Amino acid sequence: MAKIERVGISLETALLEQYDKLIAKQGYENRSEAVRDLIRQSLASEKVKKPDTKAIGGIFIVYDHHATDVSHKLLEMQHHHFLQTISSTHVHLDHHNCLEVIILKGKVSELEHIGEHLTSLKGVKLGKVNIMATEVE
Amino acid sequence: MAKIERVGISLETALLEQYDKLIAKQGYENRSEAVRDLIRQSLASEKVKKPDTKAIGGIFIVYDHHATDVSHKLLEMQHHHFLQTISSTHVHLDHHNCLEVIILKGKVSELEHIGEHLTSLKGVKLGKVNIMATEVE
Amino acid sequence: MAKIERVGISLETALLEQYDKLIAKQGYENRSEAVRDLIRQSLASEKVKKPDTKAIGGIFIVYDHHATDVSHKLLEMQHHHFLQTISSTHVHLDHHNCLEVIILKGKVSELEHIGEHLTSLKGVKLGKVNIMATEVE
Amino acid sequence: MAKIERVGISLETALLEQYDKLIAKQGYENRSEAVRDLIRQSLASEKVKKPDTKAIGGIFIVYDHHATDVSHKLLEMQHHHFLQTISSTHVHLDHHNCLEVIILKGKVSELEHIGEHLTSLKGVKLGKVNIMATEVE
Repeated sequence: MAKIERVGISLETALLEQYDKLIAKQGYENRSEAVRDLIRQSLASEKVKKPDTKAIGGIFIVYDHHATDVSHKLLEMQHHHFLQTISSTHVHLDHHNCLEVIILKGKVSELEHIGEHLTSLKGVKLGKVNIMATEVE
Repeated sequence: MAKIERVGISLETALLEQYDKLIAKQGYENRSEAVRDLIRQSLASEKVKKPDTKAIGGIFIVYDHHATDVSHKLLEMQHHHFLQTISSTHVHLDHHNCLEVIILKGKVSELEHIGEHLTSLKGVKLGKVNIMATEVE
Repeated sequence: MAKIERVGISLETALLEQYDKLIAKQGYENRSEAVRDLIRQSLASEKVKKPDTKAIGGIFIVYDHHATDVSHKLLEMQHHHFLQTISSTHVHLDHHNCLEVIILKGKVSELEHIGEHLTSLKGVKLGKVNIMATEVE
Repeated sequence: MAKIERVGISLETALLEQYDKLIAKQGYENRSEAVRDLIRQSLASEKVKKPDTKAIGGIFIVYDHHATDVSHKLLEMQHHHFLQTISSTHVHLDHHNCLEVIILKGKVSELEHIGEHLTSLKGVKLGKVNIMATEVE
């Protein structure tokens, strides 16, 4: 089990009252939980700035299913970029549009690169890349 | 088939040269494709600002699988918030950590709300919400 | 003087060690200071989402000084939008380009609106709007 | 005078109609202007990713004027980081709070670094760094 430490933080009463209201609205059960999440986010967003950090990427692609072959290109790119595809989910949005959510492991720079390439494929209408640095050990 | 129109855009030669280099690097085959994507992104990011826009949300949650019951909470929230879960993908990151990627349909405000709530659950270490306004009709 | 409170936060030793390294790199003298800033940022980014929040906006505009009359348009817009301009700084970037940094007070929605309008003026090449919810009382 | 070129872009009529509405709302007089701005933003946000790009930074700092000496620290940092301060604007927000907007020239990495350090100074409550890659030549 992970070792736990208790630290003291001093802050203005007025600030604390506002913060307690915010985290109650967000659904937090207690302050420790909320502050821990702020600290984790702060570390994660620092890590993600470094191109070599190992991370998880979620690539969202909306495309016309008549016009492209995203899964084929994805396969091809894996061989070029040594990325590890974890999973791929296909959603039928409407008559024309598909959503593909591809979850990958790799370095931040690789994930950005493949995100750029998938987004620029012919037939892809919208793309978004979500990169998370998960290893906080 | 969608009606296509051709429009003329005038811009500085120097700017165009730089842009052609950028889109080649990104993997675009031609300029029309790249400019269309810029226009679509511009529309999509405008739509996503409005809380009532119907959108697709991808919620990424990293959590300790010993400590929480994300899928249970997700189910519960759907009944409260009238969201439609499309799919849910579970990934085993390491001995302690799981990644859950939940794809939902709903209004932007609903997706933000459920994202906040899932991120604040006990045991959830990191959360990110990716919202896309997909309907460009 | 503001009333100060001391709160206890429990978190994993490993997480704490990483965080202490990060904040030392960022230049913080102690942990309380750093966590207070995370809490303030969290409150500020929540406030800025609401269109009615009173905020400070910094609008950055790069424009060709031969081609436009930003200051004239700014004046005009103030009368239309009831914004309060606090200051305006003009910087000569190079032979062609000027930077104008305009600091305004107003509601978030007004600041976004004027930012959009200034950015879209003929001759303006690049624009960015930085909105901060400052009143934490 | 800059050489101008005219390029043709083909896109769906429905997409074009939506885009024309959006840019009218944003205040654009014509489509060329709007698309040029999208292209410039696209180039600028690509440039800003590279740590060595020369850029303009606007650093916003809200601080308690009783508790800190931002201008002194700024001076000190310039000597350490070889940045060039262009201007600094001081705004009295209320009885306790000041806003300092500092405009600097430097590499992206330097601007981020000084932004981090100013934001972490004792007495600084809120900080934001706005970096623009202006040279599109």
